[in-house]
Amino acid sequence: MAVYTDIDDEQLQALLAQYDLGELLSCKGIAEGVENSNFMLVTERGPYFLTLYERRVNPQDLPYFLGLMRHLAQQGIACPTPIAGRDGESLRQAAGRPCAIVSFMRGVSHRRPGPKHCFETGAAAARLHLAGQNYEGHRQNALSLTGWRRLIDDCLPQADRVKAGLADDLAREYDALKAAWPEEPGRTGSRPLPHGVIHADLFPDNVLFVGDELSGLIDFYFACNDYFAYEIAICLNAWCFEADGAFNVTKAKAFLNGYESVRPLTDGEVHSLPLFARGAALRFLLTRLYDWLNQVPGALVKPKDPLEYWKKLKFHRQVLGASAYGVER
Amino acid sequence: MAVYTDIDDEQLQALLAQYDLGELLSCKGIAEGVENSNFMLVTERGPYFLTLYERRVNPQDLPYFLGLMRHLAQQGIACPTPIAGRDGESLRQAAGRPCAIVSFMRGVSHRRPGPKHCFETGAAAARLHLAGQNYEGHRQNALSLTGWRRLIDDCLPQADRVKAGLADDLAREYDALKAAWPEEPGRTGSRPLPHGVIHADLFPDNVLFVGDELSGLIDFYFACNDYFAYEIAICLNAWCFEADGAFNVTKAKAFLNGYESVRPLTDGEVHSLPLFARGAALRFLLTRLYDWLNQVPGALVKPKDPLEYWKKLKFHRQVLGASAYGVER
Repeated sequence: MAVYTDIDDEQLQALLAQYDLGELLSCKGIAEGVENSNFMLVTERGPYFLTLYERRVNPQDLPYFLGLMRHLAQQGIACPTPIAGRDGESLRQAAGRPCAIVSFMRGVSHRRPGPKHCFETGAAAARLHLAGQNYEGHRQNALSLTGWRRLIDDCLPQADRVKAGLADDLAREYDALKAAWPEEPGRTGSRPLPHGVIHADLFPDNVLFVGDELSGLIDFYFACNDYFAYEIAICLNAWCFEADGAFNVTKAKAFLNGYESVRPLTDGEVHSLPLFARGAALRFLLTRLYDWLNQVPGALVKPKDPLEYWKKLKFHRQVLGASAYGVER
Repeated sequence: MAVYTDIDDEQLQALLAQYDLGELLSCKGIAEGVENSNFMLVTERGPYFLTLYERRVNPQDLPYFLGLMRHLAQQGIACPTPIAGRDGESLRQAAGRPCAIVSFMRGVSHRRPGPKHCFETGAAAARLHLAGQNYEGHRQNALSLTGWRRLIDDCLPQADRVKAGLADDLAREYDALKAAWPEEPGRTGSRPLPHGVIHADLFPDNVLFVGDELSGLIDFYFACNDYFAYEIAICLNAWCFEADGAFNVTKAKAFLNGYESVRPLTDGEVHSLPLFARGAALRFLLTRLYDWLNQVPGALVKPKDPLEYWKKLKFHRQVLGASAYGVER
């Protein structure tokens, strides 16, 4: 939960004066997202979502994110659409921060998603991948090999404070992944894996449902260009483990069936899943470890347990092939 | 800002199953209120407000608060109305807490209200006082003389940590007020001051406007039975000082004109204003001082500056009569 920057009624009126949204009827700071300050606005035109972008978002990336949401919404993906002001611009300033108003998405996230929710999310991920194919923007994944190296260098000296043996394991895991990881998409030669725009943070928090129907994908502020199979691997980590740490292959199968109901995986993608699943587990292990080791006293956000992802990483390491995730090829 | 207790989709569905509000379309934890956890709900029937009551609210007071809101709304006061479940009850349990769903109020609060907002708020306070006359509930003001004594006993040993001389001044002020303060309403004999239900926390945060029109009063969780003039005195403190500490008599006049446009003050009330204004300043000085001295590391709520109210108290102490607030009698 987070509201880092407050916005008062005068700042809000000054912002809304740049739009054609009618009179302001309500504005509530909402406890959602850990990176930015979010507000639910209601104007005479209906409900909207206002985000003030905080320090952890690079302002230079904002045109990519907003352009992507607009592009995806135009392609029929249920995701927030940036609302343009009278001058056609959707990226603006308020309360000293870059900000944007986007359409409000109905739905609630499921804390304990079932196979049906996994299937729907798989299908939505595949639709997102197809719809992103002709998006002209490009953003390198800041949380792939290069980003992991930086996080490891930052965290290694203190990692054993969290759990003995973690530092050594991280260093070894990184070396193993670096040796096997495919080149950055687009740079490789023959028969690369399918790639394009990925959401890169498609956790249950970011997928909304009305009843059991998927109503929207939100929070595109990690989106980037990378392998589609890496997105799938993130989802296997985020959706298919139970609270006790057990991998639920029924949910994994449901996710992959949903995905393949829209876009069938290539053999190369299927075979890459165990590798990408390790990489995805390492990515969240490292960012959580960084946040854990760099807690600010009095911060609004309680850091998540990094060790949850160490356990997931160990699961993926002992896997014999993609069949562990419920796919055969 | 505060969300202390989170509620997940399953707890929410279990709660909503007890109402006739249709399907849940959205639920956002909102950063509002410092006492409770608040959520904006949207169902097929429209927007609602869900409050989970936290430790600082005495559960035995909840029927008084909810009954009052229902009573006032029935009398045409723009305030949240508790929504009853299918069994007719509006006070329920969710996520291990007492809770209630109330109607959603449109409007935004003004951080720097002008005289027009003061006038509207004065009129709304007077309407609230009249509408509460036939409310059968009764709740003693927990933050009058007895409550101040308890807070002073708690805070005095450490008060000079905040500002040298504060402890002595608090003790002297309490003695002066105790000597002059009228008996608890209803206990006194001849010609008591008018009294009844007061909101008791009618700060700008708790008054919503659409444009310049007052659209609602919210947050009735300090409401109690006390002198109407004490409510007015709280508002003079909360609405009529500028950020630099100066008293703005134009705003005070506007507030009192608004109030008297609905219910004229008696001579006794007018004469009591300087005394009640001191009492109201002491009340907020003490609760802020208590929160300041009892900060929990990592708490979500940043305590407000107690010294703001010491300055206000000193202003009221040097006043020669109610004419300082813009009323003559």
